[in-house]
Amino acid sequence: MSKQIAAFGEVMMRLQVPGYELLSQASTLNYSFSGSGVNVLSALTRYGHQGSLVTRLPEGPLGDAAIASLRKLGIHSGYIERGGQYIGMYFLENGFGARPGRVTYTDRAGSSFNTAPQHTYSFAGLAGKADAVHFCGITLAMNDGVRTAMKSYAEAVKLKGGLVVFDCNYRPSLWREGGYELARLHYEEMLHLADIVLMNEQDAMFILGMDAVSGEREGQLRELIPEVAARYSLCTVAGTHRTIHEDNRHSLRGYIFKAGSFSFSDHLTFTVLDRVGAGDAYASGIIHGELEGFDPQHTVSFAAAAGVLAHTVAGDSPMSSEQDVFRMLMNPGGDVQR
Amino acid sequence: MSKQIAAFGEVMMRLQVPGYELLSQASTLNYSFSGSGVNVLSALTRYGHQGSLVTRLPEGPLGDAAIASLRKLGIHSGYIERGGQYIGMYFLENGFGARPGRVTYTDRAGSSFNTAPQHTYSFAGLAGKADAVHFCGITLAMNDGVRTAMKSYAEAVKLKGGLVVFDCNYRPSLWREGGYELARLHYEEMLHLADIVLMNEQDAMFILGMDAVSGEREGQLRELIPEVAARYSLCTVAGTHRTIHEDNRHSLRGYIFKAGSFSFSDHLTFTVLDRVGAGDAYASGIIHGELEGFDPQHTVSFAAAAGVLAHTVAGDSPMSSEQDVFRMLMNPGGDVQR
Amino acid sequence: MSKQIAAFGEVMMRLQVPGYELLSQASTLNYSFSGSGVNVLSALTRYGHQGSLVTRLPEGPLGDAAIASLRKLGIHSGYIERGGQYIGMYFLENGFGARPGRVTYTDRAGSSFNTAPQHTYSFAGLAGKADAVHFCGITLAMNDGVRTAMKSYAEAVKLKGGLVVFDCNYRPSLWREGGYELARLHYEEMLHLADIVLMNEQDAMFILGMDAVSGEREGQLRELIPEVAARYSLCTVAGTHRTIHEDNRHSLRGYIFKAGSFSFSDHLTFTVLDRVGAGDAYASGIIHGELEGFDPQHTVSFAAAAGVLAHTVAGDSPMSSEQDVFRMLMNPGGDVQR
Amino acid sequence: MSKQIAAFGEVMMRLQVPGYELLSQASTLNYSFSGSGVNVLSALTRYGHQGSLVTRLPEGPLGDAAIASLRKLGIHSGYIERGGQYIGMYFLENGFGARPGRVTYTDRAGSSFNTAPQHTYSFAGLAGKADAVHFCGITLAMNDGVRTAMKSYAEAVKLKGGLVVFDCNYRPSLWREGGYELARLHYEEMLHLADIVLMNEQDAMFILGMDAVSGEREGQLRELIPEVAARYSLCTVAGTHRTIHEDNRHSLRGYIFKAGSFSFSDHLTFTVLDRVGAGDAYASGIIHGELEGFDPQHTVSFAAAAGVLAHTVAGDSPMSSEQDVFRMLMNPGGDVQR
Amino acid sequence: MSKQIAAFGEVMMRLQVPGYELLSQASTLNYSFSGSGVNVLSALTRYGHQGSLVTRLPEGPLGDAAIASLRKLGIHSGYIERGGQYIGMYFLENGFGARPGRVTYTDRAGSSFNTAPQHTYSFAGLAGKADAVHFCGITLAMNDGVRTAMKSYAEAVKLKGGLVVFDCNYRPSLWREGGYELARLHYEEMLHLADIVLMNEQDAMFILGMDAVSGEREGQLRELIPEVAARYSLCTVAGTHRTIHEDNRHSLRGYIFKAGSFSFSDHLTFTVLDRVGAGDAYASGIIHGELEGFDPQHTVSFAAAAGVLAHTVAGDSPMSSEQDVFRMLMNPGGDVQR
Amino acid sequence: MSKQIAAFGEVMMRLQVPGYELLSQASTLNYSFSGSGVNVLSALTRYGHQGSLVTRLPEGPLGDAAIASLRKLGIHSGYIERGGQYIGMYFLENGFGARPGRVTYTDRAGSSFNTAPQHTYSFAGLAGKADAVHFCGITLAMNDGVRTAMKSYAEAVKLKGGLVVFDCNYRPSLWREGGYELARLHYEEMLHLADIVLMNEQDAMFILGMDAVSGEREGQLRELIPEVAARYSLCTVAGTHRTIHEDNRHSLRGYIFKAGSFSFSDHLTFTVLDRVGAGDAYASGIIHGELEGFDPQHTVSFAAAAGVLAHTVAGDSPMSSEQDVFRMLMNPGGDVQR
Repeated sequence: MSKQIAAFGEVMMRLQVPGYELLSQASTLNYSFSGSGVNVLSALTRYGHQGSLVTRLPEGPLGDAAIASLRKLGIHSGYIERGGQYIGMYFLENGFGARPGRVTYTDRAGSSFNTAPQHTYSFAGLAGKADAVHFCGITLAMNDGVRTAMKSYAEAVKLKGGLVVFDCNYRPSLWREGGYELARLHYEEMLHLADIVLMNEQDAMFILGMDAVSGEREGQLRELIPEVAARYSLCTVAGTHRTIHEDNRHSLRGYIFKAGSFSFSDHLTFTVLDRVGAGDAYASGIIHGELEGFDPQHTVSFAAAAGVLAHTVAGDSPMSSEQDVFRMLMNPGGDVQR
Repeated sequence: MSKQIAAFGEVMMRLQVPGYELLSQASTLNYSFSGSGVNVLSALTRYGHQGSLVTRLPEGPLGDAAIASLRKLGIHSGYIERGGQYIGMYFLENGFGARPGRVTYTDRAGSSFNTAPQHTYSFAGLAGKADAVHFCGITLAMNDGVRTAMKSYAEAVKLKGGLVVFDCNYRPSLWREGGYELARLHYEEMLHLADIVLMNEQDAMFILGMDAVSGEREGQLRELIPEVAARYSLCTVAGTHRTIHEDNRHSLRGYIFKAGSFSFSDHLTFTVLDRVGAGDAYASGIIHGELEGFDPQHTVSFAAAAGVLAHTVAGDSPMSSEQDVFRMLMNPGGDVQR
Repeated sequence: MSKQIAAFGEVMMRLQVPGYELLSQASTLNYSFSGSGVNVLSALTRYGHQGSLVTRLPEGPLGDAAIASLRKLGIHSGYIERGGQYIGMYFLENGFGARPGRVTYTDRAGSSFNTAPQHTYSFAGLAGKADAVHFCGITLAMNDGVRTAMKSYAEAVKLKGGLVVFDCNYRPSLWREGGYELARLHYEEMLHLADIVLMNEQDAMFILGMDAVSGEREGQLRELIPEVAARYSLCTVAGTHRTIHEDNRHSLRGYIFKAGSFSFSDHLTFTVLDRVGAGDAYASGIIHGELEGFDPQHTVSFAAAAGVLAHTVAGDSPMSSEQDVFRMLMNPGGDVQR
Repeated sequence: MSKQIAAFGEVMMRLQVPGYELLSQASTLNYSFSGSGVNVLSALTRYGHQGSLVTRLPEGPLGDAAIASLRKLGIHSGYIERGGQYIGMYFLENGFGARPGRVTYTDRAGSSFNTAPQHTYSFAGLAGKADAVHFCGITLAMNDGVRTAMKSYAEAVKLKGGLVVFDCNYRPSLWREGGYELARLHYEEMLHLADIVLMNEQDAMFILGMDAVSGEREGQLRELIPEVAARYSLCTVAGTHRTIHEDNRHSLRGYIFKAGSFSFSDHLTFTVLDRVGAGDAYASGIIHGELEGFDPQHTVSFAAAAGVLAHTVAGDSPMSSEQDVFRMLMNPGGDVQR
Repeated sequence: MSKQIAAFGEVMMRLQVPGYELLSQASTLNYSFSGSGVNVLSALTRYGHQGSLVTRLPEGPLGDAAIASLRKLGIHSGYIERGGQYIGMYFLENGFGARPGRVTYTDRAGSSFNTAPQHTYSFAGLAGKADAVHFCGITLAMNDGVRTAMKSYAEAVKLKGGLVVFDCNYRPSLWREGGYELARLHYEEMLHLADIVLMNEQDAMFILGMDAVSGEREGQLRELIPEVAARYSLCTVAGTHRTIHEDNRHSLRGYIFKAGSFSFSDHLTFTVLDRVGAGDAYASGIIHGELEGFDPQHTVSFAAAAGVLAHTVAGDSPMSSEQDVFRMLMNPGGDVQR
Repeated sequence: MSKQIAAFGEVMMRLQVPGYELLSQASTLNYSFSGSGVNVLSALTRYGHQGSLVTRLPEGPLGDAAIASLRKLGIHSGYIERGGQYIGMYFLENGFGARPGRVTYTDRAGSSFNTAPQHTYSFAGLAGKADAVHFCGITLAMNDGVRTAMKSYAEAVKLKGGLVVFDCNYRPSLWREGGYELARLHYEEMLHLADIVLMNEQDAMFILGMDAVSGEREGQLRELIPEVAARYSLCTVAGTHRTIHEDNRHSLRGYIFKAGSFSFSDHLTFTVLDRVGAGDAYASGIIHGELEGFDPQHTVSFAAAAGVLAHTVAGDSPMSSEQDVFRMLMNPGGDVQR
């Protein structure tokens, strides 16, 4: 059944060098607009839900282009504030084989989203309009203003009985000043507000400072995640382990921890077209499973398949329908459909 | 020695989304003109034969573009009738890895080819102009007018002593009304007229309703194909088995049944650039071998190699020369040629 | 003040040869989705109104792409029915200088819109949701089913007190069977339902069979339009005269007839980037002026400037904001804005 | 009535920088294959004639691409010899406004055409297969081998009663060694063999060394062309005067001299998309008029309109049909055709 | 004779929507690197001088691409400092006819150039390495750090006997805080240091607050420029008047004031391909004339022709050689060069 | 520490069909400028050295574009002579999977480099300006003039105490007249002059006519290379063995022989984006290791990793920095860098 879902986060302009050239070789760029919230809403919209982004964008051609792009993805744009001057951007040079891709950010500190004055958004009103709201650790890394807004929104959602989804998504490069120590306080506040959390054992160890007896990842996961769930009263915790193979194929295995027990997806191995945004696709699969009441094993399988498919789609934002994900679960590696 | 070869069939406009975007992401399309007959003639022209397409195309820019495109492939356009209003089209979204490609057809029922009035073509005259004529099960699926024309042409060819080649090419989506039951009658008529037939055991079981004792494909093939050849007095029957691997590579193994015995190609495993039209390349290899008098083992190896190469060429229409196929047989996986 | 505006009409896929090549020279196409209703809503959305399209589109990649494209234009897609199989298409080869552009249609008779079964749309419900609804003579030319739906919708709007806008937009090629005689009946029915009509003296003479004493266009306009307005009780009638100059520049002069008197825009002369859809931009300007209560002189000037700007924008759909049109009225021919 | 027309000349690969960048700015090129003979045949094929090119092209990908390209234009490729190693090429940077376009040649001396051994072509056989054969002054400039072949072919055509068409097309840069003095001998030989000649008064003065009393171009034309026609027993002489205006538009006026009297086209003024090959379009119009028996005034008007249209078409080779040219004569500057 | 010329200024990344689409319509961008100093050096390098840019660029892919691009233009990159984090950017949507182009800046305040710490550059050393150094009013608008650096460099150049060139280039949008009042102080300091100044009467009136008796531009110019030259002891003052015509063509007339008298170029009227950077081309023409010792009339004609040609070249940076400018002076509007 | 490195060799224009189409299918080309010397300098420049090309290029747009392109790669263009008429070119059709790529050369015999008159270059002066100079067997194959120049330059370098690097790079197609016999003499002269030589056991056997007892490649290498090193007094000999796998991946293993002992890199297996120029990347790695004084094991590992990375970069010229190569040595197959 179609649900109302909102996401709070920044819209980034992605400027991608086409093909496999470097910025110093090429002369054209493909552009699109994405962001963790955008990606999650793009996926959930394709699973039949109504998705609305809560963000701030500048007036003028760039803001207009961003909104047109969100609308094209099927995202509701009615809660977007206009104001401020700039939009965050990043440049993407595709990798090939042994050569990894590179992401170069422009200054996002001055973006409309990151400079939104207090009281830009009416969170009290917004909170009542969504069954679930998605928040992300990238937003948490920005600045105090954004952090305050994020927590206010999450509190308002909690108050109205909506689901708070929080994807830890810790990026060391965004916490250069302060690091894990500064991050921990803010993460803990969000975890206390959250119902569904995306994370794995490394977040528990590095951000939350927890220790594990086990020396390997699954053991650490099985030790720490139940403890996290208990400590922060989380309904659901989920995440992935990724391996990159020598032939540049990737493997993904998803887990979900719910009602005291773990479920795992198969180890899925696949070729990568577009790496960015695949984590958001996995998160969307978890949210969809939870909202639809799938059993945990089905949810984690669905989310992992959705994550794999997102690696095969151009752009950050997932484009696969629920039916596409189901087909992939039944019949991976099919022939052309005609 | 160069032979005159004709093909009877529809020209389709292929509208392909470049790269790996979906129709709802992209804004440009690559277009070309193909069709089963076009593809077979493209291949045979590259092996040194003279190929002529017998079809009907509208006046105006689209018909002109189609003819220019056929001529560019080296196909003789002198027997093409102009008239009617439309050209059949299909949209192609490329797959990537775990995500299969998608083909979306426009309405081909109203195409110039499918609405050709009776007596559009002078089959009596045309029949004398070719050593062999290629027909295809896709054409058989269209409507009664086209089926009647197809059989008249095959009869006329038979009368003049030309070779009738028939590729079963059963597409379930084209026989939605009537299904196998309706199809069987028409297939049987064509099989009675044919000398060389492209099919495999599944066509025998599903279209012709034959039963096999064996539970696996090669066994079924060895049971059923000799029976088909006998029942319809076929000179040669040939076809392929395709496997799609978990790493999205494909394998192909060709067979030929002639003079009472089977020959098989190696299992060839390969990466796919463009899936559409590869079956026509295999058929062309069989036709070429038969026309040139290759021994069956050479014919099936040539056809399989031609089929593999067609997967590595952009567009539906095979572009490899006889020399390219020979080189592939000798030295698969060579370095850049300079 | 922002109004709710709906339009009823077909969405067409436009397939444009980039640059100045012909279809028989090129190998790529740019595609977009447009239609008279789409264009009008695109313009009105940019003037601050809420625009919704009432139409029918197929399931699958082409329908999805059409909806994504409408949403990108800012058009509400919530009243679009999904069903049927196909989408109408046209190919556009750009003209250059002395060589005119060419439009080639595919078969739109079988499109989802044109094959919508009776009772596809709930016009009674839809009628209450818009302050004004746009209809177009192109839709009227399609078939009886579409004509019936169109008139039912217009009647329902009339009943609920909404404004009915009708753009005559007679295309001879769409009325090949029946011609003016058949068209007249249907046009008269729509004129009786309409409040605002887009037409000029040639529509009055050819479609409605009226005679004029004057031998030149403005004279005929001044004779016939008041008579038309009286006969069909129209609130507003508006339209344009276009001249194409030897240097391939175009001139446009708009007129509006309201409350018994004519107002005219300046003769505007301009270079053309994209001819298609400019008439819809003019119509949108008239609708905007009427909805906003501009005085007629201001309305006709605004509409003419909007029409000119639409010739300078890529694609069928107008992209200029109200502010862009005002700037053009104040300061035509400005330098780069930075 | 459809005639058989041949042309003898080199196929050049045109490598054009897209848009308005220079070679030192861009990184992509559009390529096509043209040449004076190719262009003339492209035009005449579109007027309903059968055109065959007599030339020599290398084996391998470049020769294959050239032949595919000629075939796409509708030109018969059956008389093309394969051999030699290279293909002549030129780079084209488009001009814009006050900045003229630039053509940079690669070394065409070593091309397959220019290094064809004696007896490459069977002119005796070829001569019987065409109603008219087109030759060009550019070919005459190449080297002795090519010149000898050209004259042998022209003589053979003359013998068989075919029409010899000769376009003077003097390019100073191709006669750097020898200049007018060397050229004169060869031009005179060709003029003695020709029936229809394309030239103007400047060719008479500079190549043939004739003097005129008049100081302006039309006067010189009226003095010298009758003398040339008489001296070389020419049936028809035709050519153009071109003016380039300050606003970068061009004007063209065609003349034809036949049966002792001159006819002139209107002065046609137009915007230029692609300058190269327009002279060949004019020549084709003259040839078509002569073959069809148009009266001279109609021929020169047709040729001038064909020349103008060729400036509006991308690429060197004319693409307009006879109907396109007629439409332009009736209705220059028309609106989009739909 | 080849001179050493330096320029001090920011490198901007230009992100241009190809063709005539808006940012909200397109999905690709062309990028290049420019800036006032870059453009001036690009032009002067083409006139045979050695040009070096003094600027600061970040480490990483964007800085590398900027340097590669400068080097491609022929500019010496040896004096470029690496450091800081960002590069300034602007988006360009091309105008067409009545629709003007639009420039949208990203936040350049945080660029490497604008955040260079004190003592980033060794101006004392640099000053001795150039015969002339170019400074620009855009740089003056940035912030105190940049202004200080700029003046230090100019002083050092003055000390070593080099020429200081200052282009006023006042952009109101860059002086929003402070306006003319704040600007005046800084402009006056630079004018006191300058030898050659680019400006016109409006700069004198608005920035310097001078009054003119005359009511039209040439009169004001003749009144004010001699006074400016005297007040600041300038060797040469030069500039342009631009008119934009109704048909979207532009006219330009250059002036130079030197040794007490004015020289003017012709009024040149032309079509515009790329508006940005044309002022820098004019400035370069003035600098070249001064360095080469042209007489003022020749200098102003050369500069105006160079300015016109820069409007016909893709990108901000002039690409014409000295020979191209001379050819334009002799023979404007020539045919294709082959 | 940054060294001065020169290379002597031809600049070739590479004209590459984009994607996977053939020349007879496509209509656009990507162009760039490369050559063995260009590629080596491109790599070494990225490792922090100063690279200068010694070559000859024509005046005009193609020569200008070549120089702009070299400069963009970071190569010093100050020692490039301008003169002659043409530039060598090659067309590249990319292979895919089982279909190998194809290279088609135009006539390079007449290029500016290959027709340089005696005394074009001042080798005596140039020799003092570089710590090492790179020569290549391709240059040796051209003609006597070029061979003489090459040896003179190498002698001059030797005299001044610079390092002579010689890459054997034997291409059978370039020695069609004369073959190994003719080649041997010239190779021996260069080997006598060289310090560092790139070759493997096949060069020893085929060019130098040496015999090996062993029947497999490593055995032959271990027998012959020490003998070659001794015979020609070489400081360092290095090279690679390449294997092409059935799945179209390649493997590379580098060797270096120095001070009497061999070092080998790992067998590296990788996917290939662009095959051309990878050998030059390996050579550059060896040169860099030698110039920097790496121990041989480090040098050969670095060179092999550099060679692998060059297969993953678009274009002939290596683009990886020293840091990129080190990262690949530490952490092959990493995730996107952000």
